[in-house]
Amino acid sequence: MTDEQATDPPTVESAEASELRARVAELEDRWRRALADFDNLRKRVARESATQRDAERARVAGLWLPVVDNLDLALEHAADDPSAIVEGVRAVREQALDILARLGFPQRSDVGERFDPAGHEAVAAVSVPDTSPGTVVQVVRPGYGAGEHLLRPAAVVVAKGD
Amino acid sequence: MTDEQATDPPTVESAEASELRARVAELEDRWRRALADFDNLRKRVARESATQRDAERARVAGLWLPVVDNLDLALEHAADDPSAIVEGVRAVREQALDILARLGFPQRSDVGERFDPAGHEAVAAVSVPDTSPGTVVQVVRPGYGAGEHLLRPAAVVVAKGD
Repeated sequence: MTDEQATDPPTVESAEASELRARVAELEDRWRRALADFDNLRKRVARESATQRDAERARVAGLWLPVVDNLDLALEHAADDPSAIVEGVRAVREQALDILARLGFPQRSDVGERFDPAGHEAVAAVSVPDTSPGTVVQVVRPGYGAGEHLLRPAAVVVAKGD
Repeated sequence: MTDEQATDPPTVESAEASELRARVAELEDRWRRALADFDNLRKRVARESATQRDAERARVAGLWLPVVDNLDLALEHAADDPSAIVEGVRAVREQALDILARLGFPQRSDVGERFDPAGHEAVAAVSVPDTSPGTVVQVVRPGYGAGEHLLRPAAVVVAKGD
């Protein structure tokens, strides 16, 4: 308490104490409500986090069902006409690449690019005439996505210096 | 302010006001901190929610890469031996069903089950001797998952009464 307040007359003191008590009650209420809001948010987050993950899993899995359906169809038709299955499987493969692209992971086309450890894994180095060292000359296993959205690096063969 | 408090001597009033002011300061601090905690949690949740969804998307998409790789392999070998592709595609199909099962969506086997609108879509009803009405007699398009984890209902043909 400051000197100034200590010299206040009793009636003013009483009014001040009354106001302070009201302020204490109000702040206690606000504080408790803020704590309750925090707690409710925390519980809601725990619940929704699992729900959202489940929903994303189902969404992505569902995108692949047409691929499975078309594999089934290709196999059914294979009995009648074995050569038709190749066309069917080619179409299914295109469909699968399209799904990956829509999910943010397009197939990388790396031949001719400079080797970049952020998206390439070198599996071999070969001497190639008229090709600058460090150039990707063959993709052994394609990569998908790039940068922060790299799903899998490409396994590549790189040109080496002589 | 109650009658009792109004008759307190001035010195007691001053000490009380002093205590109340300290209490007000303390509660204001607690309230503000609770609000800040709430706000930080809300921001963190918004950030992590997107991150978790991205992570789940990448995890599920990544499971399908071997399927795409094996389609590529089946097509490569088809040039040499067209009959080999059927075996390859059969294996890829099994692989795809295995992925769906691991994600919580096993392929339903519904023939012989009682029709259940929670997991079946009736596309036709046929008379079948010695089969009780409402029995699934054929699956036109397989369903995946069940109950809360139903990814797709099965399209089925159901036995009808005479």
